[in-house]
Amino acid sequence: MINILEQQLQQKINNKTKPLGSLGVIETLALQIGQIQNTLCPAISNPQIIVFAADHGIAATGLVNPFPQAVTAQMVHNFASGGAAINVFANQNNIQLTIVDCGVVTAFDKNLPILHYKVANGTKNYLQENAIDIEDVHICINNGKKIVEDIVHQNKTNCIGFGEMGIGNTSSASLIMHYYLKLPINVCVGAGTGTNNEQLITKINTLEQVATLHKLHNFCTPHELLSKVGGLEISTMVGAYLQAYQSSQTIVVDGFIATAALLIALDINANIINNCVFAHCSNEKGHIKMLDYLKVQPILNLGLRLGEGTGAALAIPIVQAACAFINQMASFESAGVSNKE
Amino acid sequence: MINILEQQLQQKINNKTKPLGSLGVIETLALQIGQIQNTLCPAISNPQIIVFAADHGIAATGLVNPFPQAVTAQMVHNFASGGAAINVFANQNNIQLTIVDCGVVTAFDKNLPILHYKVANGTKNYLQENAIDIEDVHICINNGKKIVEDIVHQNKTNCIGFGEMGIGNTSSASLIMHYYLKLPINVCVGAGTGTNNEQLITKINTLEQVATLHKLHNFCTPHELLSKVGGLEISTMVGAYLQAYQSSQTIVVDGFIATAALLIALDINANIINNCVFAHCSNEKGHIKMLDYLKVQPILNLGLRLGEGTGAALAIPIVQAACAFINQMASFESAGVSNKE
Repeated sequence: MINILEQQLQQKINNKTKPLGSLGVIETLALQIGQIQNTLCPAISNPQIIVFAADHGIAATGLVNPFPQAVTAQMVHNFASGGAAINVFANQNNIQLTIVDCGVVTAFDKNLPILHYKVANGTKNYLQENAIDIEDVHICINNGKKIVEDIVHQNKTNCIGFGEMGIGNTSSASLIMHYYLKLPINVCVGAGTGTNNEQLITKINTLEQVATLHKLHNFCTPHELLSKVGGLEISTMVGAYLQAYQSSQTIVVDGFIATAALLIALDINANIINNCVFAHCSNEKGHIKMLDYLKVQPILNLGLRLGEGTGAALAIPIVQAACAFINQMASFESAGVSNKE
Repeated sequence: MINILEQQLQQKINNKTKPLGSLGVIETLALQIGQIQNTLCPAISNPQIIVFAADHGIAATGLVNPFPQAVTAQMVHNFASGGAAINVFANQNNIQLTIVDCGVVTAFDKNLPILHYKVANGTKNYLQENAIDIEDVHICINNGKKIVEDIVHQNKTNCIGFGEMGIGNTSSASLIMHYYLKLPINVCVGAGTGTNNEQLITKINTLEQVATLHKLHNFCTPHELLSKVGGLEISTMVGAYLQAYQSSQTIVVDGFIATAALLIALDINANIINNCVFAHCSNEKGHIKMLDYLKVQPILNLGLRLGEGTGAALAIPIVQAACAFINQMASFESAGVSNKE
């Protein structure tokens, strides 16, 4: 089937006053966002970043992370008071920021300006049992859908960046990567927020035990995978991805954990990939292999490995530039510029 | 000698609420711009992009370029009326844009809102003679200094992006690259604005003849090199780089031609490199080798090969993010976040 819109978008792009293809990724993005929005004049309206936060039972063991579990809650307070990297970048680029407690161990004051969707006080330790009750996985996914539905409705946004915070969540992401990419654990595990060499070996050994215990070499459903080794923030993100696609959002995927959550969402609905742009290639070791697996090119490569949606916040101006390009730039005809040899 | 400012900047960066080094290039940029501006609180003020335009005698032969020479003047009109890619990106990112006629063949109306620094009606054909009279090289360099001096004075800017426009100017840039990097012409020559395979072979053969005629394997001074194979826009850019360094500007280097001009400026004053950030790695083949030669990392890699300063316009928000980061982000102490295992 010939896609007329795609042809028309490509023709519009090719008639701009520049050599064919000379704006590279900017042109590719304009083409993609035109298709997402079903228009020859795509535009980014009220871009938004959601930071999904939760705690991980494994983190309390100290086997996988150098920072204490309490840092998750401390960072949620830091987000709420505007002091974190994501606040700075979102503010600079006029991106609205929403923080969601999906399951931080600490109880937050109900007046803290975040969305309160705590499903449990962190996950259970998946070194011993399933991380999340299967019922809670479903609750998280439904929460994620509702969060996106509300934001799209209230803010008239058409572009959502996906970020996260959770001490220990690179471990869940590594296990999810291991399941889908069928790569050995040591290829999927990186330094996270700052593990040294000795800690890294412990992290790898620990996660190999987890992979064996939960039989990650065998098939399971996306919901079962979340139950076994997921996070409450990752489960909520899966629901949010599903709804963002349904709401025709341009989805800006941040780094390693956001991409791991996307792998699960794609297992439920593979079409979501059409709406995704990949903000950056993280310095977290496994991320580039995930991007290769998905056959996608990241927009930025800045050596970031912070999470929070920081890569998404830095990439959104490039996405906006792509829309400005296709709408505002002159054509050869309108500018009276020669397009012939 | 211990650099106290550098130590203090690094300490300020390391105390931000994030794992050490987890903001990658953002941290490196903050450190560099702090040193350029000699402050712990660097900021980008009134960023500016200058597009230096001129024609090349070799282009009239049709041996090196698919687009006719007339496109240079047509694009200057397009810049002046706001329809080019650089207009769109500069406008989106609140960057002021200045277009300079350094030597376009066409005479422009004096009321056209550009800077009029035409030194000659294009260069001469370097396949037969020197491209630029040595006196004109000096005039161009002085013009470049004055342009930057005026802009810095009038606009209170501390950050200048360097862009260019000139049909045929990838050829000059390739010859300059060949001289400094000592690489064969065929490694230095790329497709420019859209040369096909057959045209590319003709371009390479032509530029090999030029390199032989002008004995580019022998030493010459930077001014002699500009006289032999330079462009009027490239010569003006050399002066602009020299002054931008003197005026403590953060210099945002765009693509292949802007980097070739920088090679010459560095031959005159090697310290300029300290003030340079490299906006992107161009899709023009030789650029990555130039960046490797300079031992620098580009900020973006978007497959651009348009020139005009488009890469600089897209990279400046990242430079601004680096300054916002070091100024606005909370420290572990101020945010009450744990920084201990």
